Amino acid sequence: MKLWDKGYQIEKAVEEFTVGNDRELDLHLAKYDVQGSLAHAQILHEIGILTDNDIQGIEREIKEILVSIEQGTFTIEENFEDVHSKVEHLLTEKLGDAGKKIHTARSRNDQVLMDMHLFCKEEIKTIRALIKQLFDRLITLSETHKEVLIPGYTHLQIAMPSSFGLWFGAYAEALIDDIYFLNAALKIADQNPLGSAAGYGSSFPINRTSTTHKMGFATLKYNSVAAQMSRGKMEKSISFALASTSGTLAKFAMDVCLYMSQNFGFLTFPAHLTTGSSIMPHKKNPDVFELIRGKCNKIQALPTELTLLINNLPSGYHRDFQLLKESLFSGLFNVKSCLQISEFMLQHIIINKEAINDKKYDYLYSVEVVNREVQNGLSFREAYQKVGQLIEAGQYSPDKDVNHTHEGSIGNLCNKEIEAKMDTALAG
Amino acid sequence: MKLWDKGYQIEKAVEEFTVGNDRELDLHLAKYDVQGSLAHAQILHEIGILTDNDIQGIEREIKEILVSIEQGTFTIEENFEDVHSKVEHLLTEKLGDAGKKIHTARSRNDQVLMDMHLFCKEEIKTIRALIKQLFDRLITLSETHKEVLIPGYTHLQIAMPSSFGLWFGAYAEALIDDIYFLNAALKIADQNPLGSAAGYGSSFPINRTSTTHKMGFATLKYNSVAAQMSRGKMEKSISFALASTSGTLAKFAMDVCLYMSQNFGFLTFPAHLTTGSSIMPHKKNPDVFELIRGKCNKIQALPTELTLLINNLPSGYHRDFQLLKESLFSGLFNVKSCLQISEFMLQHIIINKEAINDKKYDYLYSVEVVNREVQNGLSFREAYQKVGQLIEAGQYSPDKDVNHTHEGSIGNLCNKEIEAKMDTALAG
Amino acid sequence: MKLWDKGYQIEKAVEEFTVGNDRELDLHLAKYDVQGSLAHAQILHEIGILTDNDIQGIEREIKEILVSIEQGTFTIEENFEDVHSKVEHLLTEKLGDAGKKIHTARSRNDQVLMDMHLFCKEEIKTIRALIKQLFDRLITLSETHKEVLIPGYTHLQIAMPSSFGLWFGAYAEALIDDIYFLNAALKIADQNPLGSAAGYGSSFPINRTSTTHKMGFATLKYNSVAAQMSRGKMEKSISFALASTSGTLAKFAMDVCLYMSQNFGFLTFPAHLTTGSSIMPHKKNPDVFELIRGKCNKIQALPTELTLLINNLPSGYHRDFQLLKESLFSGLFNVKSCLQISEFMLQHIIINKEAINDKKYDYLYSVEVVNREVQNGLSFREAYQKVGQLIEAGQYSPDKDVNHTHEGSIGNLCNKEIEAKMDTALAG
Amino acid sequence: MKLWDKGYQIEKAVEEFTVGNDRELDLHLAKYDVQGSLAHAQILHEIGILTDNDIQGIEREIKEILVSIEQGTFTIEENFEDVHSKVEHLLTEKLGDAGKKIHTARSRNDQVLMDMHLFCKEEIKTIRALIKQLFDRLITLSETHKEVLIPGYTHLQIAMPSSFGLWFGAYAEALIDDIYFLNAALKIADQNPLGSAAGYGSSFPINRTSTTHKMGFATLKYNSVAAQMSRGKMEKSISFALASTSGTLAKFAMDVCLYMSQNFGFLTFPAHLTTGSSIMPHKKNPDVFELIRGKCNKIQALPTELTLLINNLPSGYHRDFQLLKESLFSGLFNVKSCLQISEFMLQHIIINKEAINDKKYDYLYSVEVVNREVQNGLSFREAYQKVGQLIEAGQYSPDKDVNHTHEGSIGNLCNKEIEAKMDTALAG
Repeated sequence: MKLWDKGYQIEKAVEEFTVGNDRELDLHLAKYDVQGSLAHAQILHEIGILTDNDIQGIEREIKEILVSIEQGTFTIEENFEDVHSKVEHLLTEKLGDAGKKIHTARSRNDQVLMDMHLFCKEEIKTIRALIKQLFDRLITLSETHKEVLIPGYTHLQIAMPSSFGLWFGAYAEALIDDIYFLNAALKIADQNPLGSAAGYGSSFPINRTSTTHKMGFATLKYNSVAAQMSRGKMEKSISFALASTSGTLAKFAMDVCLYMSQNFGFLTFPAHLTTGSSIMPHKKNPDVFELIRGKCNKIQALPTELTLLINNLPSGYHRDFQLLKESLFSGLFNVKSCLQISEFMLQHIIINKEAINDKKYDYLYSVEVVNREVQNGLSFREAYQKVGQLIEAGQYSPDKDVNHTHEGSIGNLCNKEIEAKMDTALAG
Repeated sequence: MKLWDKGYQIEKAVEEFTVGNDRELDLHLAKYDVQGSLAHAQILHEIGILTDNDIQGIEREIKEILVSIEQGTFTIEENFEDVHSKVEHLLTEKLGDAGKKIHTARSRNDQVLMDMHLFCKEEIKTIRALIKQLFDRLITLSETHKEVLIPGYTHLQIAMPSSFGLWFGAYAEALIDDIYFLNAALKIADQNPLGSAAGYGSSFPINRTSTTHKMGFATLKYNSVAAQMSRGKMEKSISFALASTSGTLAKFAMDVCLYMSQNFGFLTFPAHLTTGSSIMPHKKNPDVFELIRGKCNKIQALPTELTLLINNLPSGYHRDFQLLKESLFSGLFNVKSCLQISEFMLQHIIINKEAINDKKYDYLYSVEVVNREVQNGLSFREAYQKVGQLIEAGQYSPDKDVNHTHEGSIGNLCNKEIEAKMDTALAG
Repeated sequence: MKLWDKGYQIEKAVEEFTVGNDRELDLHLAKYDVQGSLAHAQILHEIGILTDNDIQGIEREIKEILVSIEQGTFTIEENFEDVHSKVEHLLTEKLGDAGKKIHTARSRNDQVLMDMHLFCKEEIKTIRALIKQLFDRLITLSETHKEVLIPGYTHLQIAMPSSFGLWFGAYAEALIDDIYFLNAALKIADQNPLGSAAGYGSSFPINRTSTTHKMGFATLKYNSVAAQMSRGKMEKSISFALASTSGTLAKFAMDVCLYMSQNFGFLTFPAHLTTGSSIMPHKKNPDVFELIRGKCNKIQALPTELTLLINNLPSGYHRDFQLLKESLFSGLFNVKSCLQISEFMLQHIIINKEAINDKKYDYLYSVEVVNREVQNGLSFREAYQKVGQLIEAGQYSPDKDVNHTHEGSIGNLCNKEIEAKMDTALAG
Repeated sequence: MKLWDKGYQIEKAVEEFTVGNDRELDLHLAKYDVQGSLAHAQILHEIGILTDNDIQGIEREIKEILVSIEQGTFTIEENFEDVHSKVEHLLTEKLGDAGKKIHTARSRNDQVLMDMHLFCKEEIKTIRALIKQLFDRLITLSETHKEVLIPGYTHLQIAMPSSFGLWFGAYAEALIDDIYFLNAALKIADQNPLGSAAGYGSSFPINRTSTTHKMGFATLKYNSVAAQMSRGKMEKSISFALASTSGTLAKFAMDVCLYMSQNFGFLTFPAHLTTGSSIMPHKKNPDVFELIRGKCNKIQALPTELTLLINNLPSGYHRDFQLLKESLFSGLFNVKSCLQISEFMLQHIIINKEAINDKKYDYLYSVEVVNREVQNGLSFREAYQKVGQLIEAGQYSPDKDVNHTHEGSIGNLCNKEIEAKMDTALAG
């Protein structure tokens, strides 16, 4: 049953083209669709559109549907276009007119907006929780391995001493910035759009403040046209936050793949978490991190995809918006999956404590030598030139006693302060 | 004088390729570079690297340089690579060794990070203020023209009654979501990176908490590697916020261009703010809004540009980061310019109060008729089918008495609530 | 059976994460995988790795597998990682050692490269054929409606007379440019990569020229490292061509949606090819063209997605490349689908011959009046100013007798020449 | 003098916003603008709009202007909006009415289209020539160093033997694919758009076939609307070709930066072509290749930028198109610059012939050992497992005698065939 069926037979090809994979995607929205429908029914009851009897029936049937959703038995069959038609069908089948009346003062666009806002709020919260888990793992690893030095690179050249403490801790702190964007996306999602109807409000005296409270939104997207314009804009906002998080993960994965190369040899994973080669028996490949990198890089194209989809469309609903769901859902799913598997893999990471002892890393300490000359009274420039000449002449010898004490340096990681910053961010 | 000059003659072509337009761009950073240098010098004094005499000279000279920057007489000549070399040169010329010593415990990368963080904080605040100006203009227009109806479209089809009140107010409320992203970007910029040196800290016992307070940062980017990783990540974060704002402006500009077409005729601008055609004498073209749209659409490619620039680079500094400045500066400049000119143009917008009276808009009111049938007891579906049949049969006649009262509808714009939400957002 | 299984039990989560939806995607490659395997087996036979008996068995079994693929009975079960493992299993099951030996002198990466090149060649040819169908439809419509004037717009302002002849013909000619890019992509795909093994060749004296001929490639990708680097680069090249075609379709769809708005009313479609509204009974929405626009806009993000996926990866295979398939397959499928449905819809397009008679289009003819003044001896600038003054003074009256004769104008569409150019392009 | 000046004073802010940096950019177009103007004047003369006297004067003055362009004395002052106004001014100043009449039957949009097509043709040809130079350098290096082995990597893991012959040759062959895209872009640019006027043709009986020949175009963009639609579409097409070339360069630069790291040490450059560090005296940084990588990565965002700029704009000219020039010009300039400096740097590359002898590369030869077992009668799978067990047991010893003979392998680079393919591509 298509809502807009007016008795014409729609060509099969057109139907397939227009419905796409909506039925499958909408299963993710079902829970939120019925929650929102309940809130909407309750305010219809408040203004007399639904009778006491109507609302009691609706509340009962919606609870039933919710149970079937939680049990995984709720389905959207081929003869329904989307979750909204299916739910309306279920209600009408049981309740007759009352089931039909629930569509008063709202449109499908309205419902999709509401479902997406409720769904996205939950998803963002889940992602924040997964980031926190990964953050905790990174902080733990930073503390555990804080004594283990590795070379720090600039221009991919061996530059100065770094440590696993710094490296793990750096990605932990970087994730806090990603939380700021998720918080912004959450604020954008946490505004009730329900009641904009087809995007211009309606003549029914509905109480949008009441649905806002019933559905647990922080505030309203007041202006009906603004509420409608959230379609696409909210999804794009979330994609920015996903891209931000993905960028951090992808960079970390790149480091892991590089450091696992025999040319670095800083770290590895147990054999059962790596894969082999169909042609080279000695290989232990970092496939998981390559796929984290690849998936996170793809997610970073999501803002472009959503921007292209909605860009230069005049205000008002367009059917193009239906295509937002698939892209966003895939992005959300992949970010969650990459966060989880990153944390899982890091449980098993194996650190090479001896890598730093390779002779080629002796130059790492040249800056220390320069600094000592400075502390002995040379200007930095003079000390720099002196050590440069020693190196050119082959007379340089390293002093490996690294003694960094300032905030955020090898000897003073400030992980406690970073944890406090994360807590503040998550509360924000 | 290039900082890394070791006596070799660098090929001219290479130098031009590598320096690029850094001198020009760095003029925007000069103010922040000397402010940061002062803070750095003061903590070098605290730990005894600079004498009392040194710091007094530096404070005096830096004040002098600041004056020249404010007066617009500060320049970066061809024999300097960037602002940092020029400032060091000025200090050394006057102060000798003391001027050289200021480079202790920091690197150029460190300085660029600090300059960019200080600069971006200011820019983001400016952009927020410009958004607020445009927001106020839109709210004023929404209130002024709240009685003027225009058609609301879905699928670009005439759908339901809307109003200039709704339309202007919608873009005002949409701008609040953009503020959330600017706030996130500001939080990311408002963390002191100074002291990470080349990205791995140093052995000097500098006090980063002290420079944080001196430069007015809200907190530190603690971990040195995290601080270095901000290079690129901060710029990308800002680009997301710029893209968000630009998306709102571009959509508004698209509406304006469409509504100014003779096929809509909802609005226009005075002749001196439109342009003509070299071949058609009757044209009044919305060039300004076409260019707002175009510039804002280009800015929406900035996240892709910055992502491509930094993506899949392992951790640590890379020279590629030098190219971030040009892209970001251009984005910041264009967003500010588009916000300003939008507000300026809206001061002069001319509204057509009669557009709605065209006969083709009669169908706008069909939903009202459906709703009335519902309020008279039909289910929505039945009412919908009844009105559909009237329309098909040519028997439909509109009832233009629009009476919408719920929050965010034509008759209840909630602009006060929207203004309160904006105030909260700006305070956040 | 995983090819790289060395006896370890791989964590379930890792396996799911790494295999992804490869099994499903690989069904599209099965035909090409066995074709290529056959060619490879034949040259292994030539150099004595496979015996006469071996090759006869392989030829027989591969024919069998091909039949199952054509009949749709070929499957890749959960215990196989991909099509390659499944085919090897089938051969080994029947042929024992001979089935195993076929993996000599190649790697899975090699096979994927080969499969993708063969598959993409076919896909590109299919897309060119679908473009030709749409092109023919557009040319036919251009000829059929060449007398029907519509307004031509600049800056979305009514500018000069245009016609359905010009409009349909323009999109036909624009499609020729898309063919040039598909031809470039085809040239890139039409180079045999097989034999690069893991990307660096092998010590087996295989005859790559022979496999090139057997598989019908135009030439070899000679250098083994270059062949391996095609992974990603070829897919990105195809994405450029898909983006080009999609850009043309999306723009056409935008025109259709706009022209179908009641504010233009230039065209429509039969009711059974449009959709209705769940809340507004009078609507006939251009959903199909909105979805063409949306899908084609998403495809235009494909180059960014693939670029991000492969960018800044050093040379050599990376597991990230596995993710290329899903993105590219989706792009190919959607381009084909949008081309087909566009052509289908255009079979039913309904043209409004009277739209041009609306009074607001009178200004369209002002340039004609200017031109007549020029032909009567005024300079263009003088004539332009004269007509401008008439319009300002309300004294302008249109002369609707459009008489354009030059190549590519309303009266001389040059559709024959455009068809000849398309034929040349398709042959190129 | 603005062409569309109708006596109103345009606000200064609006003028700056709309003109932008057009004057500067248009200097690149001046040569083509006057060439095209001459061709246009000549056909106006053919149809009697210009007298014999007029055309002689125009031909004389245009030659004069061309001389000033070639000598670098041509300028576009602040009182002119663009090159077109300036040229018209010069002609009118000298020739009076005849200078004015040249604007008959064309519009500025027409002129920009023509200028851009002529300009882009030249630029593409220049880029192809620069690619050929780089290709030749790479082939020469491949031949010179064909005996020097380096490790080949998969998953960034040491995999199989490769060589500088393979590595240099691979990038040479990859550049051929980029030529295919440049050829496609050239075909798109090589179509005369002149005569479409404002995008819908005109009533003047101009001879577009004649201007096509006069300006040296291969064919016409026949349909006037299609010609106008080239604005943006042509630029986007070129951006695809630039992105393709840039992708190859960026990947090469990534390899260079990695291989120059002390962790690889495969190659380096003379000190005067590298840069140092302001804080670390031992560094020799690959800044030039980092900036090639960075610039080429930014160019790969150009398709997104241009797509966003033109996407979802209905057919017909929009002022947004003015912004195409800046983006495209920057992309063209940077691709040329990166190609030139790449070739320059490669003249000086220093190869490390001994890198391969590091003990960690012993596993490279394991596939050879597997292959030998295969040639001794084991199946590949069996041989693979046997060698795998040897490696696990620490009993593996390498056999470094690499003997690869097939097409495109270490011992048979096929550089002659690759050169022939490049020649064919450049002729295509």
